[in-house]
Amino acid sequence: MEANGTSFLDRVLNLVKEDRSESVPLIQFKHPKDLEAILDLDVTKGVNDKDLEKCVREVLKYSVKTHKGTFKNQLFCATDPYGLAGAWLSEACNTSQYTFEVGPVFTLIELKLLNHILKLFGIPNGDGIFSPGGSISMLYGIVAARYKAFPEIKTKGMRCLPELVIFTSQDSHYSIKKAAHWLGFGTDSIRIIPTNNHGQMLVDKLDEAIQIEKDLGRCPLFVNGTAGTTVLGAIDDLEAVADVCKKHGVWMHVDGCWGGSLMLSPKYRNKLKGVERANSIAWNPHKMMGAPLQCSVFMVRDKGLLHEANCAAAQYLFAQDKFYDVSYDTGDKSIDSFKLWMMWKARGDLGLSELADRTMATAQFCIEVVASRPGFKLVSDVLQCPNVCFWYIPTFMRGKAEDGQWWEIMHKITPKIKELLILNSQLMVAYSPLQNQKNFFRLAFTFHPEIDSHQVVQMLNSIEQCGETVTMEMLT
Amino acid sequence: MEANGTSFLDRVLNLVKEDRSESVPLIQFKHPKDLEAILDLDVTKGVNDKDLEKCVREVLKYSVKTHKGTFKNQLFCATDPYGLAGAWLSEACNTSQYTFEVGPVFTLIELKLLNHILKLFGIPNGDGIFSPGGSISMLYGIVAARYKAFPEIKTKGMRCLPELVIFTSQDSHYSIKKAAHWLGFGTDSIRIIPTNNHGQMLVDKLDEAIQIEKDLGRCPLFVNGTAGTTVLGAIDDLEAVADVCKKHGVWMHVDGCWGGSLMLSPKYRNKLKGVERANSIAWNPHKMMGAPLQCSVFMVRDKGLLHEANCAAAQYLFAQDKFYDVSYDTGDKSIDSFKLWMMWKARGDLGLSELADRTMATAQFCIEVVASRPGFKLVSDVLQCPNVCFWYIPTFMRGKAEDGQWWEIMHKITPKIKELLILNSQLMVAYSPLQNQKNFFRLAFTFHPEIDSHQVVQMLNSIEQCGETVTMEMLT
Repeated sequence: MEANGTSFLDRVLNLVKEDRSESVPLIQFKHPKDLEAILDLDVTKGVNDKDLEKCVREVLKYSVKTHKGTFKNQLFCATDPYGLAGAWLSEACNTSQYTFEVGPVFTLIELKLLNHILKLFGIPNGDGIFSPGGSISMLYGIVAARYKAFPEIKTKGMRCLPELVIFTSQDSHYSIKKAAHWLGFGTDSIRIIPTNNHGQMLVDKLDEAIQIEKDLGRCPLFVNGTAGTTVLGAIDDLEAVADVCKKHGVWMHVDGCWGGSLMLSPKYRNKLKGVERANSIAWNPHKMMGAPLQCSVFMVRDKGLLHEANCAAAQYLFAQDKFYDVSYDTGDKSIDSFKLWMMWKARGDLGLSELADRTMATAQFCIEVVASRPGFKLVSDVLQCPNVCFWYIPTFMRGKAEDGQWWEIMHKITPKIKELLILNSQLMVAYSPLQNQKNFFRLAFTFHPEIDSHQVVQMLNSIEQCGETVTMEMLT
Repeated sequence: MEANGTSFLDRVLNLVKEDRSESVPLIQFKHPKDLEAILDLDVTKGVNDKDLEKCVREVLKYSVKTHKGTFKNQLFCATDPYGLAGAWLSEACNTSQYTFEVGPVFTLIELKLLNHILKLFGIPNGDGIFSPGGSISMLYGIVAARYKAFPEIKTKGMRCLPELVIFTSQDSHYSIKKAAHWLGFGTDSIRIIPTNNHGQMLVDKLDEAIQIEKDLGRCPLFVNGTAGTTVLGAIDDLEAVADVCKKHGVWMHVDGCWGGSLMLSPKYRNKLKGVERANSIAWNPHKMMGAPLQCSVFMVRDKGLLHEANCAAAQYLFAQDKFYDVSYDTGDKSIDSFKLWMMWKARGDLGLSELADRTMATAQFCIEVVASRPGFKLVSDVLQCPNVCFWYIPTFMRGKAEDGQWWEIMHKITPKIKELLILNSQLMVAYSPLQNQKNFFRLAFTFHPEIDSHQVVQMLNSIEQCGETVTMEMLT
């Protein structure tokens, strides 16, 4: 290892380039026990650089190639190449932004970028922070709402507060349950509002639910509107949610972790109309936009609140006798902003809006093909976020009465198709049941630089092909 | 940009190599407003690759070179080069470990490494998780303790629980205050236990404090013992803390974020004796050990508790009808483990223990030099973690009565010396007051591959030189 500690980095770059060659398969699936037997993972004894490279090569071989267009298993996909370059630089700089002193440039970059993002979301006078992930952003949102309503929470705790209630839709993210537990509300304090067929919150029901709690003498604190549910990609009617929150004086949070990226497109951002009235917003650029994991932004309308709610004076960190302007000492922040800044700087607002539009156009194309292609059946034909949800109905199932038994078979076939797609290394696609609906596929499109209509058709072909093979196997 | 998105990565590697050349200064300090004027940070318009590289070059120019041995500003320092290589690979793979499916190898690596770490800390049957940072590990610890004592917290919240009390030492990390706020305890529920001159908790006082709360009908829940306080590097008498916790039936947590790395050394791990009796432990390998930021491990003795306390069924993520062993679907985890695994694999237990021993020997050498060198005065002469805390007393201050006025001057001189050290790009060193003690320097040593006794003497020379210059300026 060279004195400046960079010699292994050349090897890393070569490994990454090899790993990204066209011929490398999406996944070479091994069952956990088999994989354990193949890999030399024990760290007790050290190895030399040559053997380490050999180990790493094996690690890469069996890792999923998330950069391929056929990785559709999650709500993240290929990283933006500029984002990856930024992430590598951040790692090499290895600093934090506790204070301006240790991260001078990164502190300025974060401020600049957050201001740009706050403007984009319509709360230019707000405040923001890069959080360690979507679940933590949910904690930030509820903590901010609670502190704003009851500043005594900080010293006195939940025992001294009235009975608080949180509202969210049936299709919203499960992180709100964890937040209710952690923050001391308890999950019983959550009211689940039903959704329509497209996965959007029934806002009339929200209004009623809040009124009921008020009538019972409880204190409605926090409404979580969703811009991009995990499965269907539904976007709640945020304007209507804002009206209800205003009427009742309740904090409005928007979980835009997935759908927030649509704000980058002048063509599609009206789908989130009303988000600019929110008290707090969460957005994960590491999802649709393709920033490297993790990249999560939490925004709050009320400037200063983040600091007030979260500060816990650390004398040694924030000495006030420093020789520069200490208002730049932001504290407690990572430098996740840099990778996002680099992608944004490379592409500009226009480049990003084009990627967003292209993603949505691809999803729209996919919906249309699925709608018209025999054997495919859409769950919802409305394009909200670029999620396309559908069943594949094998030939022998078609034209029959879609009764309970029929649906039970569909419920079993979907995972079987997915299994074969993985074993063939053709496609990694998510599936899920939802409320009364049996297992269906979800193709969620992201800002992938390569995805086009041809690839969409290929993915559907793969599903069809595996769907037919699987039924043959099930029948014989 | 090439189709596989790697072309900019060559430039990144070259930039990093240039950035690490010997001749590059530790810091080129600019005041925030001046730096803002120099840099082109606005992202509205995109730039081409050449201009982007130019921007990035400027960003690097004004960033602090945390890899240099003269960066002593924080409890982290140079990243281990293998750790950095691992971080780059993780970023390139861009995956998470929600499920075995998307991160098969990384899931196995994490399990293997966590088991190795649990064994090292003496809780081989425990459970662990890589958390997003030390503050979140503190949340994990308190959440686990609370859930274990009162599982109804998950649904019913804090309002249904008795009055809970948390205990921590005067010198412990401020994150416990934030945790008490966030989790709904309120900071009033924290009892601060005084410390001795070396920064260690007075365990007799802890025992008394717990008894007092019991007598008052409150419920002592959680004791935070510290292995490595931020300023002095103090390690509480964990054996004594464990005895008190056992006597009163209270959860024992050890914040070993800083000092946990001493467990890597058979020679020094006895300083943490008693840690193996803890109910939960936090350790940040990104601090002393030099793993890239962030790398935080949270451990718990009670297997299964992490899952029980934190699970919030996400149907779409953890489908039980998968075709492989779903017990490997760990959920909610990042792949921070890989970079740590790579350093460990490269160095082995023995290589890491040598680095730990070398770090401690360097700190011991520093203590001895400071103790004997005219003009230097130790805050504590006991080596616990490799923190060396001291004042520099300029020539004109020596031999005078150390009265209130004398100390007020010392309090002002220390930050002035630091300022000059930064402006001269000689050394970035932390300073802090502590309780009744006026501003002093803290040199905290980490597993830096290059630090030796020669460099230690150079750092002290720099402090002396700037100390004398500053006093000349103050007097004229």
